Amino acid sequence: MPQRILVIHGPNLNLLGKREPEIYGHQTLDDINRSLQAIAEEHGITLDVFQSNHEGDIVDFIGGNMGSADGIVINPAAYTHTSVAIRDALTMTGLPVIEVHLSNVYQREVFRHHSYISPIATGIIAGLGVHSYTLALEGLLRIIRDV
Amino acid sequence: MPQRILVIHGPNLNLLGKREPEIYGHQTLDDINRSLQAIAEEHGITLDVFQSNHEGDIVDFIGGNMGSADGIVINPAAYTHTSVAIRDALTMTGLPVIEVHLSNVYQREVFRHHSYISPIATGIIAGLGVHSYTLALEGLLRIIRDV
Amino acid sequence: MPQRILVIHGPNLNLLGKREPEIYGHQTLDDINRSLQAIAEEHGITLDVFQSNHEGDIVDFIGGNMGSADGIVINPAAYTHTSVAIRDALTMTGLPVIEVHLSNVYQREVFRHHSYISPIATGIIAGLGVHSYTLALEGLLRIIRDV
Amino acid sequence: MPQRILVIHGPNLNLLGKREPEIYGHQTLDDINRSLQAIAEEHGITLDVFQSNHEGDIVDFIGGNMGSADGIVINPAAYTHTSVAIRDALTMTGLPVIEVHLSNVYQREVFRHHSYISPIATGIIAGLGVHSYTLALEGLLRIIRDV
Amino acid sequence: MPQRILVIHGPNLNLLGKREPEIYGHQTLDDINRSLQAIAEEHGITLDVFQSNHEGDIVDFIGGNMGSADGIVINPAAYTHTSVAIRDALTMTGLPVIEVHLSNVYQREVFRHHSYISPIATGIIAGLGVHSYTLALEGLLRIIRDV
Amino acid sequence: MPQRILVIHGPNLNLLGKREPEIYGHQTLDDINRSLQAIAEEHGITLDVFQSNHEGDIVDFIGGNMGSADGIVINPAAYTHTSVAIRDALTMTGLPVIEVHLSNVYQREVFRHHSYISPIATGIIAGLGVHSYTLALEGLLRIIRDV
Amino acid sequence: MPQRILVIHGPNLNLLGKREPEIYGHQTLDDINRSLQAIAEEHGITLDVFQSNHEGDIVDFIGGNMGSADGIVINPAAYTHTSVAIRDALTMTGLPVIEVHLSNVYQREVFRHHSYISPIATGIIAGLGVHSYTLALEGLLRIIRDV
Amino acid sequence: MPQRILVIHGPNLNLLGKREPEIYGHQTLDDINRSLQAIAEEHGITLDVFQSNHEGDIVDFIGGNMGSADGIVINPAAYTHTSVAIRDALTMTGLPVIEVHLSNVYQREVFRHHSYISPIATGIIAGLGVHSYTLALEGLLRIIRDV
Amino acid sequence: MPQRILVIHGPNLNLLGKREPEIYGHQTLDDINRSLQAIAEEHGITLDVFQSNHEGDIVDFIGGNMGSADGIVINPAAYTHTSVAIRDALTMTGLPVIEVHLSNVYQREVFRHHSYISPIATGIIAGLGVHSYTLALEGLLRIIRDV
Amino acid sequence: MPQRILVIHGPNLNLLGKREPEIYGHQTLDDINRSLQAIAEEHGITLDVFQSNHEGDIVDFIGGNMGSADGIVINPAAYTHTSVAIRDALTMTGLPVIEVHLSNVYQREVFRHHSYISPIATGIIAGLGVHSYTLALEGLLRIIRDV
Amino acid sequence: MPQRILVIHGPNLNLLGKREPEIYGHQTLDDINRSLQAIAEEHGITLDVFQSNHEGDIVDFIGGNMGSADGIVINPAAYTHTSVAIRDALTMTGLPVIEVHLSNVYQREVFRHHSYISPIATGIIAGLGVHSYTLALEGLLRIIRDV
Amino acid sequence: MPQRILVIHGPNLNLLGKREPEIYGHQTLDDINRSLQAIAEEHGITLDVFQSNHEGDIVDFIGGNMGSADGIVINPAAYTHTSVAIRDALTMTGLPVIEVHLSNVYQREVFRHHSYISPIATGIIAGLGVHSYTLALEGLLRIIRDV
Repeated sequence: MPQRILVIHGPNLNLLGKREPEIYGHQTLDDINRSLQAIAEEHGITLDVFQSNHEGDIVDFIGGNMGSADGIVINPAAYTHTSVAIRDALTMTGLPVIEVHLSNVYQREVFRHHSYISPIATGIIAGLGVHSYTLALEGLLRIIRDV
Repeated sequence: MPQRILVIHGPNLNLLGKREPEIYGHQTLDDINRSLQAIAEEHGITLDVFQSNHEGDIVDFIGGNMGSADGIVINPAAYTHTSVAIRDALTMTGLPVIEVHLSNVYQREVFRHHSYISPIATGIIAGLGVHSYTLALEGLLRIIRDV
Repeated sequence: MPQRILVIHGPNLNLLGKREPEIYGHQTLDDINRSLQAIAEEHGITLDVFQSNHEGDIVDFIGGNMGSADGIVINPAAYTHTSVAIRDALTMTGLPVIEVHLSNVYQREVFRHHSYISPIATGIIAGLGVHSYTLALEGLLRIIRDV
Repeated sequence: MPQRILVIHGPNLNLLGKREPEIYGHQTLDDINRSLQAIAEEHGITLDVFQSNHEGDIVDFIGGNMGSADGIVINPAAYTHTSVAIRDALTMTGLPVIEVHLSNVYQREVFRHHSYISPIATGIIAGLGVHSYTLALEGLLRIIRDV
Repeated sequence: MPQRILVIHGPNLNLLGKREPEIYGHQTLDDINRSLQAIAEEHGITLDVFQSNHEGDIVDFIGGNMGSADGIVINPAAYTHTSVAIRDALTMTGLPVIEVHLSNVYQREVFRHHSYISPIATGIIAGLGVHSYTLALEGLLRIIRDV
Repeated sequence: MPQRILVIHGPNLNLLGKREPEIYGHQTLDDINRSLQAIAEEHGITLDVFQSNHEGDIVDFIGGNMGSADGIVINPAAYTHTSVAIRDALTMTGLPVIEVHLSNVYQREVFRHHSYISPIATGIIAGLGVHSYTLALEGLLRIIRDV
Repeated sequence: MPQRILVIHGPNLNLLGKREPEIYGHQTLDDINRSLQAIAEEHGITLDVFQSNHEGDIVDFIGGNMGSADGIVINPAAYTHTSVAIRDALTMTGLPVIEVHLSNVYQREVFRHHSYISPIATGIIAGLGVHSYTLALEGLLRIIRDV
Repeated sequence: MPQRILVIHGPNLNLLGKREPEIYGHQTLDDINRSLQAIAEEHGITLDVFQSNHEGDIVDFIGGNMGSADGIVINPAAYTHTSVAIRDALTMTGLPVIEVHLSNVYQREVFRHHSYISPIATGIIAGLGVHSYTLALEGLLRIIRDV
Repeated sequence: MPQRILVIHGPNLNLLGKREPEIYGHQTLDDINRSLQAIAEEHGITLDVFQSNHEGDIVDFIGGNMGSADGIVINPAAYTHTSVAIRDALTMTGLPVIEVHLSNVYQREVFRHHSYISPIATGIIAGLGVHSYTLALEGLLRIIRDV
Repeated sequence: MPQRILVIHGPNLNLLGKREPEIYGHQTLDDINRSLQAIAEEHGITLDVFQSNHEGDIVDFIGGNMGSADGIVINPAAYTHTSVAIRDALTMTGLPVIEVHLSNVYQREVFRHHSYISPIATGIIAGLGVHSYTLALEGLLRIIRDV
Repeated sequence: MPQRILVIHGPNLNLLGKREPEIYGHQTLDDINRSLQAIAEEHGITLDVFQSNHEGDIVDFIGGNMGSADGIVINPAAYTHTSVAIRDALTMTGLPVIEVHLSNVYQREVFRHHSYISPIATGIIAGLGVHSYTLALEGLLRIIRDV
Repeated sequence: MPQRILVIHGPNLNLLGKREPEIYGHQTLDDINRSLQAIAEEHGITLDVFQSNHEGDIVDFIGGNMGSADGIVINPAAYTHTSVAIRDALTMTGLPVIEVHLSNVYQREVFRHHSYISPIATGIIAGLGVHSYTLALEGLLRIIRDV
């Protein structure tokens, strides 16, 4: 059975490519998902992609899929800075988690410099735009392979 | 086509007028909406009124209506102090936003002195009870007219 | 008419007993609810038990049931540290509230030492595992009886 | 006898419209006062308008007029952040006070995020340019009428 | 041989029921001790009750009895916030400790929000008045029984 | 030649006895000055009494009288917390200074707990109402006599 | 029956006049007590003087004498900065309390700038050496007389 | 027409050379002004020298002269640390400003390490005594010449 | 001419693989460099690899090579948290910089959570062990290609 | 007459060697005292050894013996972090004081990183277990000899 | 023998005029040194100019030349904010030190507002570009001449 | 083969005995090294003594000698407060480390109260002048012998 990776996009990422391209770039979420799907196919793994603006939905999704997944790529977006619930859900999975940010959060408002997710993530990739996602998936696969 | 303003009421405001009148006054949310509607009719604009206790619903509503609106009046209530997601959604609209508070938040607990919304709002009106809302709508209309 | 107590379980508690037993113990949420139900029957009261991973759902539940309840036992879990909306909803009920934590939050991360709920709760019970819940219900009943 | 409102303009506002229009707009203090006067006439009230760069003068003015006034609209400008004396004078009047700011202070330097006046004001209006003043006067009149 | 529990009352608790009943209630320390004794007899255990206004006496008492006790219920009162010595003594016993507070310390001065004892206690019960003590003893017995 | 003491009253103290008697009491500034004058006559010294709402006036007064005075009693009122200029003027006199407060500043807002004057004063008397002044003058005379 | 005042001297004050005269002056505790006794005789009141290096003894003394006293003069010395227990005991008496310091604590280490006693004291007198005590007793008598 | 420089001396500088020479040196303000005048003459420019103990006077002076000046040398003295009004006035001029301090403020009290003026000044010169002023004027002239 | 990338290893990384493998893994710096070299060859670019324990050497290296390089991969190790000089050197190059950390710095001491480099880096990759380096190089190449 | 050194052991040190040997080691207080006694005899000096769990007792002991001692070795244990009274007593002796800690306090809880004693001690020795004591005594003797 | 001044340029200043001219201007370090040399010749003094990117080299240079120098002009650049070693070396020289900054550090990142050097410098000159250096040298010469 | 101890002296210690003797005493580094050598010979061990003003050199020295040493005595001087690189190097050795300071750092500037080295050192000795070194070496030998 192929390995299965959860890809989670946080709030407002459904608007990607449509607003504030000087911060987030011009690619849409579909573009990103296609790039990730291409990598997945190349490695023979399954992706389960999920986007929500609801903290509770993301917690539900993590809790509901933890038994059948091998790793998580998550861009928690705004919830990076405010959600202990998502942190707790991720911790409970016991899975390797890569936290992704399109922009370099350290060049933005001070409150974006703190992440509730980072201390419980395996790795963090930020500031590389869409490449943050593709590098995260590639890195997660290398880590799973290493274990 | 008439201008269209989003009016957003945050969590627990559905209970307005029923609880803690010494802080929030005796008027209900329906009373407020009726006052706003009267102003709207007077100016020949359309109001799109929304109340939710769910952060994600508010984010959905903002993101889903940004293309067809000309301005936003929002009382983020408790989410004023905890929601980066609503802030990000508001920022993405590129619309003028007036932040409203019924009570004077500076006379309440210290954590209510900080707003995630204020730095990205156009204007802030607080402490005037129901008049905070009506002044906000009137002010928003004057700003839209100025541009 | 029998007294009615709301029992509210916050995010990720649906996974109780399945993950991180070294922190939260081996009992499931059903086990806890059964223990609470036994106490309720012994005292001839009604329990209304609710679990959700959604902050907004918990706010809805509190607001929607405040008129028909006599007290609240709540384990806000992750929302303890991040939800002003649940705090406001609890305050609006005017009911006695007992805040419950399975683990001793003071032995965990610093951000778990702060609770938005404690200042508006009647009492706090933490660190006694499942007994935190049963003692909370027993304590709430004694307080209601005292009044 | 008609109601009487004190309108107080703090330091450097005499230069309004002549400097830094990107922050404060192009209207002069006279323009603002004319707009306020028009509202006053419409409502049949008297305005007593005062501008000073001297903290002590503003304290003198408040203390000297408190007995004959029904409310205060004040833009404390720089003294917002540094004057306990003006705060104390305003508190002593026991009158409703609306604090006004032309610009959104939360988009400027951090020291402008703190106001000595806000905790003792009735209401606060900021960021709406000249409309901050007119809305403040209209709001103050509605509040006086409500009492 | 019956199990033996140490019950420790900190400074000024000898005055309980005589002063500030709006904070601490009307029951005296003797009333509390009688309630605890009743529970002890019901469970066939021995209580060793101690009150002192002296930090050093409490340290002496803990150190002198640690070998012959099975658990500790302590209301450290003012020493909650200032005594590292009592914390160290409690830690050295290796016994389960329940920290008790009559009032909800989070509704009082900020310095009462910090406890030197909580991080080394097994559990904490606060805000339930005299019931804080009885629930603490019952909870301690359940914990000892669980082990 | 008789000794000469400067008595300085800070901003808003001209309103004493007319406003907020629950904080400042019912006596007027004239009442206080009469009490001080009585003590002065009893000891055969001269008082030079000054009140101003203007920081600059107080600085002028201190600088202009330093050569001819033997000590200073000052109630800096609001300028206690905001005036480095008055502090510097007082320091430059090299005279004994007693800082006076009618109310107990530690029972009021946090910003009133800090005084720019205290570190350069000889002594501080607060919270005894009008007696703060009379004790300050008596204390100052004892200190001058001690030297 | 004559009024009775408790005079409490905190830790190390037994060494007064023998050590560090540049901070505390040359007078001994006996000298101070004699000065206070003279004032007491003049006013026909009784003094109950107590010195201890033990926090618990001071708490015992306050609790044990509260019923028969009319006011308290206390120099808490080092316990000013560390004792919540003495604060709580003083609060429980419901008596007027004057806090005394020989030296100006604001000219010493930063930790001496904070007092647990000041917020619950009636008045504070500091920096006037032995006169701090005599003024405190005189002030306390005036306050008792005012009531 | 010759260039015109405003030279502004803040509070208490009228006493220069008369008090605390160990901090500020023995030269008087007249001495300083003579030195500056000599430089001005040498360069064929006009100086407009102003000293005041009044924050409002300094704001008036800056606002009233901004149109006819080419640069400002200011020693804000105590107002360095407390005046946003002077900062705002200086900013509004749009002129090059050199902030001057006679003493090295970093060797004095912590509150003197923060300047409201520095972030809006062109340059800062401190600690060189009277030379701070002469270097400031020379530096200002070089900067004006560079532009 | 092939593109040229600077790869910079900070202090103590020469000991990699020999010490604390539970934090840094078992691979040596040579292993890492070989992996990076393989990627470089695959993409037809040149790597210039440099390791030093000397902050000044790293500053020299960056300044000396900025003209001939197209991007920088740097693991600043301990200097991440203490070197403004390296930050300034990197900024001056104007080149894309990827900051690399082998371990997840957010799971280590608090002082490791702050990086002087992140705010001026293009992207950050941490916690993926040796893969942090290879992903950084791959990411840098994609970014250079995007421009 | 032989030199006399006070050796003071703070709270809970009577339990040394019986509890938490992983922090404090296996040696008892008697073992330590014997080691110190051996050094004392070797150097022909007298030791006066004292242990107490009571802050007040330690203050009494220091004050009562200051006249007849030549130096102090003190392990203040928990009172290191909470006792200003012991600090003041030590300061008053004017004797050289060596502060001793068995464990490395910087590897323990943050509140143990602050010592009220260190700023008034001559020297500090920590983390060397029982050797902390013997080195402290040897160091103290060398210092006394140097003077 | 002519007086001898050390001129020390910190890290990255070798790149001056080549990078980020909007912050540092267009002049190179050679230009600055030539300007300084001209002043030196005019006054008949010797300059010993040194630039290094190595903290240790700067410490070596200061320590190695302290005996033969009469004053120091130093632009510590990045080491301003991070080097205690350079501060200690400068202090040890006992020479007058003028700290120089080309840019106004108060208009840049917050970490640049703190200088380890300022509290031990004689004077500070910042924000005047190359003139900061020339004024510093002229000021230093005046100070040496004053002594 | 004899045991081998590294003795490391940080920046500016080469100037010891030549500058600021009121802080560091009159003995030179050679004097200290001779005292240490005498102890080494007495115990039949080898010392490897190193002084540098360069952080990188100290890191090099530690890394280069870790395999052949049995313990380290280090006075990091200024690098105590600023060097994570030396901390990391010391940690990597896995050797017992004694941190030495000649002066009592707690009587000096606040920034000297924090040490990057203490949390990873075995023991700390400060304030005993040259004896800090000799006691450190003796203590280190006792610890090595204990293991």
